[in-house]
Formats: sequence, structure tokens, C-alpha cells
Amino acid sequence: MTVLRSVLRRFVASPTALGAGLAAVSLLAVPAAAQTAPLSAQESDPAVMGWMKGFPPPRDRIITQPESVYFSFPKLRWSVCHLRELLPTEEISRGLGAPRPLEYPPPYQFANERQAIDALTFKPIDSDKTMTWEESLYANYTDGLLILHKGRVVYERYLGCLNPDGKHAAMSMTKSVTGLLASILVAEGKLNDSALVSDIIPEVKGKGYGSATVRQVMNMTTGLKFSEDYSDPDADIWRYSAAVSPLPKAEHFQGPSGYWDYLPTVEAQGQHGAAFHYKTIDADMLGWIVSRVSGKSVTELASERLWQPIGAEQDAYMTVDGTGVPFAGGGLSAGLRDLGRLGLLMLNEGVVGGERLFPAEAVRSIREGGDASKFGTNYPALLGGRYSSMWWIYPGQEGVFAARGVHGQTIYVDPSADMVLVRFASYPRAENPLIDPTSLPAFRAMAEYLKSSPN
Amino acid sequence: MTVLRSVLRRFVASPTALGAGLAAVSLLAVPAAAQTAPLSAQESDPAVMGWMKGFPPPRDRIITQPESVYFSFPKLRWSVCHLRELLPTEEISRGLGAPRPLEYPPPYQFANERQAIDALTFKPIDSDKTMTWEESLYANYTDGLLILHKGRVVYERYLGCLNPDGKHAAMSMTKSVTGLLASILVAEGKLNDSALVSDIIPEVKGKGYGSATVRQVMNMTTGLKFSEDYSDPDADIWRYSAAVSPLPKAEHFQGPSGYWDYLPTVEAQGQHGAAFHYKTIDADMLGWIVSRVSGKSVTELASERLWQPIGAEQDAYMTVDGTGVPFAGGGLSAGLRDLGRLGLLMLNEGVVGGERLFPAEAVRSIREGGDASKFGTNYPALLGGRYSSMWWIYPGQEGVFAARGVHGQTIYVDPSADMVLVRFASYPRAENPLIDPTSLPAFRAMAEYLKSSPN
Repeated sequence: MTVLRSVLRRFVASPTALGAGLAAVSLLAVPAAAQTAPLSAQESDPAVMGWMKGFPPPRDRIITQPESVYFSFPKLRWSVCHLRELLPTEEISRGLGAPRPLEYPPPYQFANERQAIDALTFKPIDSDKTMTWEESLYANYTDGLLILHKGRVVYERYLGCLNPDGKHAAMSMTKSVTGLLASILVAEGKLNDSALVSDIIPEVKGKGYGSATVRQVMNMTTGLKFSEDYSDPDADIWRYSAAVSPLPKAEHFQGPSGYWDYLPTVEAQGQHGAAFHYKTIDADMLGWIVSRVSGKSVTELASERLWQPIGAEQDAYMTVDGTGVPFAGGGLSAGLRDLGRLGLLMLNEGVVGGERLFPAEAVRSIREGGDASKFGTNYPALLGGRYSSMWWIYPGQEGVFAARGVHGQTIYVDPSADMVLVRFASYPRAENPLIDPTSLPAFRAMAEYLKSSPN
Repeated sequence: MTVLRSVLRRFVASPTALGAGLAAVSLLAVPAAAQTAPLSAQESDPAVMGWMKGFPPPRDRIITQPESVYFSFPKLRWSVCHLRELLPTEEISRGLGAPRPLEYPPPYQFANERQAIDALTFKPIDSDKTMTWEESLYANYTDGLLILHKGRVVYERYLGCLNPDGKHAAMSMTKSVTGLLASILVAEGKLNDSALVSDIIPEVKGKGYGSATVRQVMNMTTGLKFSEDYSDPDADIWRYSAAVSPLPKAEHFQGPSGYWDYLPTVEAQGQHGAAFHYKTIDADMLGWIVSRVSGKSVTELASERLWQPIGAEQDAYMTVDGTGVPFAGGGLSAGLRDLGRLGLLMLNEGVVGGERLFPAEAVRSIREGGDASKFGTNYPALLGGRYSSMWWIYPGQEGVFAARGVHGQTIYVDPSADMVLVRFASYPRAENPLIDPTSLPAFRAMAEYLKSSPN
């Protein structure tokens, strides 16, 4: 028990790699605040709060370690744009050339379009009152929103901490980048998704992960013991958090150190392939697989296969553990427009500016993969959907698929409307089911609007 | 004594913001290695050592915290290119547009020129044997070397950990960037260099810094008690190191927290203006002054006034303390070519591509400033030189001036030869006087060669 308490204290006293904590700390931190209504988006705007303003800022306006502080609401509304200032990170290089410009309509038309879109109305799930598009931005604590239609930017707004040249935490959308990289390797014949994980990572032979297939990891149908019950001091999430923190370990620290030291300690539970269980460690394992197979870190591979060829205008970055391993399950921060470029790449099945970057099969297998019968009922707004190569495949005829991250992050691709929508947000609670009701109907209304648009 | 020991232990157990440690740790770490000959540049090449290679790397090839480990030779040869992976950092944005291309000769001519330059010979200081230019690259553990002549790149090489799209620790060259920003503000009438520091930063009124002038800070002629005697557990450097570490403080930590919390605790010693005493804290103080006066952090101002308008091809970054303050005395990491662009800006007194970025006076006051009579004898190769706005003004008729950082960093500007030379290096010891003998005569030989070159 002393050991446990000391692990706990270490976690609280020192930050975890973000995203271990991501859900962890936000959930821990919120209940007190959530009992009363949290500050509104406007009230909690970092500029209004005055975080980190001044030289120096007033003492109570300084945001610093540990994560339990900097990632608690409303501070998290600043921190989502400033993770590199709090944590060690690794660059995803855009390369050195000129960025590939995004297409925009003429300014007059663009301004008109924005006005029309802000006035769009929709009905939130389980609500009788309509809401305007612009109201939804605030309801969801939006920090940035970009919409591309027929390859052109038709809407772009920055709120909260974000600017055009800023980067925002992508949270679990990181998983979708890792999943896409894996899917590319599979489509190119470099990664066999029916192989056992232990064929590629012998370190997990005989361990929980050993008998899972790569595909089960990609679709998160592994059967593993991994509790994220934050009220339980024995929960696995605490040992994981201590392991993956980038900070120096305490003097007599005994546990695993880093993502890849932790993963072989995960035990089996239930049956691989039986059901979809969302868990960050599967993305960490997939990052390991991708690196072992490609001979490159996830950041290097994301740069070579994605950021450079899409013509990103900003480098992106990922947080790392104490051994330099990027956090494949949640560590990405990137620019809004660059995730728009990535969304276009998905929409166009691997083609950018007429150039094919990888086989269309890499995207098609994502859109067609996953198993609705194993999806379960944890995500009410997505009932009947699928989880495939770490992308969310939405129910419905439109073929919508998306990357999603806690606190409201999404890359939402609707091929039926030739639409890509990217949202960065800093919703007070780390629970997308609370955000879906004012988001998904809005996105559907947007698709309908664009389908009927003359442009 | 218990308190002292605990401060010491904290320093050793947890990293200091780099550059507090910069000198500190390197000096501490070297003696044992230096008693025998250290590994050569070729032997200690990070690729040869195999640092951080593999998924995961072998345990003894992982470079991680604390600083006493990652910044000891030969590990430092990897770490100088990877500081952001070990420490929190703040971006210096290049903006979002296309970079301003550097001019190159035609490839055939460029290759010939390189061959000719590598074969150049010179005589190291206090040596009878000549050395070739290429030999000097290895003698100095060079990681990157760029030479611009008449505005064109005539020589460019990457060794050790550096690549064209990589960034390297600039170490104390950071001070020269901070000094240039201050000099720009002075030339524009926004900063009065004869004002007392306490007029701008009331926090130091009545303290050691209070009665110094801004100019004395800029030229490091302040009279302050700041011991960097690493063998003395009472030395100020230890308290400074503990204060500025970006990691969470220990539970009962009592000392100042961050650069700006530390600086008001510095006591006077001797007389302001009497003599040049090189000390990092003056650059930290100048960073504070620059931020207070401009209303921008050093990173923001460096982006707006330098990195964006010079058309940098990479973002740069600075390490930060635990309160988000960038390390104005040593925290910069940047691309080789971008420091070449910065060198050209200095050579051309503020003009880039025909556009004037700031008054020529900002550079002229640097070149003409400082006081040779106060320079002292600590830098044998620079006897008769000056230190002005955190730039080194070399003795001699050529008007050479330079940024310098430990382990061999330099931006060397020779107006008489229309030459800018940038070198990143990871020399085993943090003592430039050991590197000058195989560097300065080489740079002078290069200037002579280029002066006589037909191109």
C-alpha cells in the first residue's frame, strides 16, 4: 500500500505523458467544477482569463506543471495550444520547401459564405430547441474550425487559444494518424495485419499482447486487462502514467519505464477479437509495430509519408516518454489547416494535387473495415458504427468517417458532401458523448447545406 | 548544510534548464574523460555510437534525463540536436509562407569550391604543423558548417547529429540574439540604454541589478555576485540551476522559481561598469528587459523581427523555465541555414533582399560598442577585443564580429571579406579557448581565400 501511495503521489506530483493523463486528469479534475455549471466558452477564453499574460504574469495566472494543474479546466483551454512549453516533444517535420497553398474562394464570397454558415440552424440530439452553427462553436468550446468543400476552404475560424500559425493538441486523433500509417504499410504489403503481434514484437511473446493479431490491435478488439477506473488506486492507468511520464523517475522507482517497457506487462483478459474495447495502449502498441516494421519512429514516418508530401505549412509535434518514444496514442499537436490537408488526403484516398501518395486501399480498408456487431453501446451517437484502423466509421449512408479526440477534437470526412471538417476544441470535460449532441447534427446540417450550395 | 546537500542532490537528480547546466555539467562531467584523450569526432559520431537507434534502442544507447547524463560527452554529441525531446520548449515561428531561398552557385562550381576549401591549409595557434580545413572540422567536433560569400552559399557541410532540416543548440549564441533584439529596440528609440534597470524592472530596485544601466547589462559590465565555481556547493550557479529548471520543484522547495524570480536575488559585488565579466544572468536580465519594454516574449519578438522577415526555412525554439520564460541566455536551437540568414542580416546591417528590417544603427552600435580596456585577459585568442550588446567584437582591422557559444558554436561575420560563417559543434569540453586555436586561424585563412577568389 505504501508503494501504491507513492506511485499515486508521484503521478499527482509529477506530470504523466499527456493522454495517459488526458482522460485521467481531466476526469479527476472536473467533478468539483462540474457540480456547478462550468465557465462558458466566452468566460473561460484564455485571453479573458489572462493566462500567461505579462512579464511575468501575476502568480495566479501562471500555468505550469504538474498535469493535474495545467490540464484542468479552465487552464486546459490555454494548455491545449502550448503543450510543448510544458513537455518534451519530437518534431514532425514539414520539410524545408514552400507549403502547398490551400484553395480559397475570393474574399468577398468567403465572407458571405461565413455569414451564411454561422446562421445555419440545426436541432441538437435530444433537444427541441434549434441552435445556430455559431452558437454551437461556443457550446463546444471550439478553438478552431475549418471546413473544406470540393477541395476549397469555405469556412475557417479561430477562437480561444488558437491562431492560424498555432498548434493544438489533437489528443486521440493521434491514434488515427498512427492507424493511417499502419494502414499504408498494410496496403503496401510491408505489414501483415493477420500476423501475430509477437511475430513482429517478440518482446510480448507469451504476454497479453502476444497472441493478438495486428488487425485486432488496429481495430482495438484486443482482450486485455487495462483498467482506467481513476477512483481505484490499483487501476492500470496509474502504473501506465508513471511509466510513460517524460520526467526523471523518482530515485527508487521500480516500474516499467516508457511505453515499450510497459506494454509487455499488460495481461490478457477475455478473448482477442471478441469486441471493440477502446483503449489508448492499443495505439501505443500499433506505434511500436509501425516503428519496428518501418525502421522509423512514428514522427519520422508521419513526416515522410504525410506532413511533407501534403505540403504542410507547419511542423507538427508529438509528446514523448522519458526514453524518446513518441506518444502514438495521444501526443500529436498540429496546425488546423494541416489537419485540413490530412482530411483532404483521406477524402481523396491518398491523392494530393494529382499525385498519389499511397495505394487507395489504405483508405478504403479503413472505410470498409471494423465490425459493427462488435462496436457495443458506449457511444450512443454512433450506434451501429465501427472502429477501423483507429478511425471511427459513422453509421448512415453518407460514408462519414472521422478521427476523434477528447475535449472535442475531430477530423470529420463526409464523402457524400465532398466535405472535410476539422475542429479543435477544449470542452471542459473529457467526454465526447457530451459534445456529440451539439456537434454531429450540426455537421450533418453543414453537409446538407454544402450539398445544396451552388458553389 | 542539509539544505545545501538537498539543493545539490536536486540539481544532480533533475536537470537544470540547459545552459545553467550548459557549462556546469559539461565541466563537471569532463575531467575524468579528459584525463585520457576523449573519443575523436569520428569515434564519437552519434551514428557510430548508435545513440537512440532501434525500436527501442539497446538500454545503454538510450539518452535521457537528467542533464548530467544527456549533456555529458559523448552523449552531448546527440543531445545538441535533440534538446526539445528532453526539455519543454517554446517555438520561434518562421511564419507560414514560403522560405526565402538562399543563393547557391551552380552545382558543379559548388562541388569544386568545396573540394578547394577542404584542402585549404592554415597554422593553428601555438602550433608549427599546418592543418587542412577539413581536418579542422574534425578537430573541432563540427556538426554543421555554412559559409556565405557575397551573399551566396559557397560551402555547406553536415556532420555528427545535424542535417539540413535539423536544429542544433546555439548555446550562448542565444545571448547575441537577445542582444540584437535589445539593440534594435535601442536604435528605434523604444529602449533607453542609459536608463537604470530598476526604471524598467522595478522588481530589482535596491537589489544588485537595480543600479546598473541597461547598457552595462547589454555589455556585461555589471558588478554582481555570481559564482560559477562548480566545486563549491555554495556557488550561486547551483541555486540558479535549481530555480530555472523546467521540471516540477520538489515538494518543500523554498528557493526562487524561474529566471525572473531568481534575478532580483542577485547581490551587487564590485562596481557596475568597471569591467567585462561574462555571465549568463546578464542575458537573462536583458531578456526580461526586452520583454517588459516590447510587451512580447523573446521568442515572439525573435519571430516577428528576425525569423519571419529573414524568410527562415525552419522554426527555431528556446528552452523555457518552469514558468514558461524562454532562456534568453542560452536556450536557442535553430537550423544552420537560418543562422546563415541571420549572419547575412548582421553583415548587411539590417537589410534582407533589399528590404530594411531595422535601423542600421542597431548593428553599427554593436560593431562600434564595448570597451577594449575593460575586456580583460580571459580570452587569449581575442585579446584587445570587445563585448558589445552580447556580441564578440574581434581585434584587428577586418571588423570581425561574432556570436559564440560553448562547445564551438559561432556565427562569424567578416565584413572585409563579405563573409558569414556559421558553425555548430559539439566539442567535448565547454571551453571555447580550447577550440579557438584550430578555429580562428582557419576562419582568417578562409577570409583570405575568399577575398582572392575570382567568384
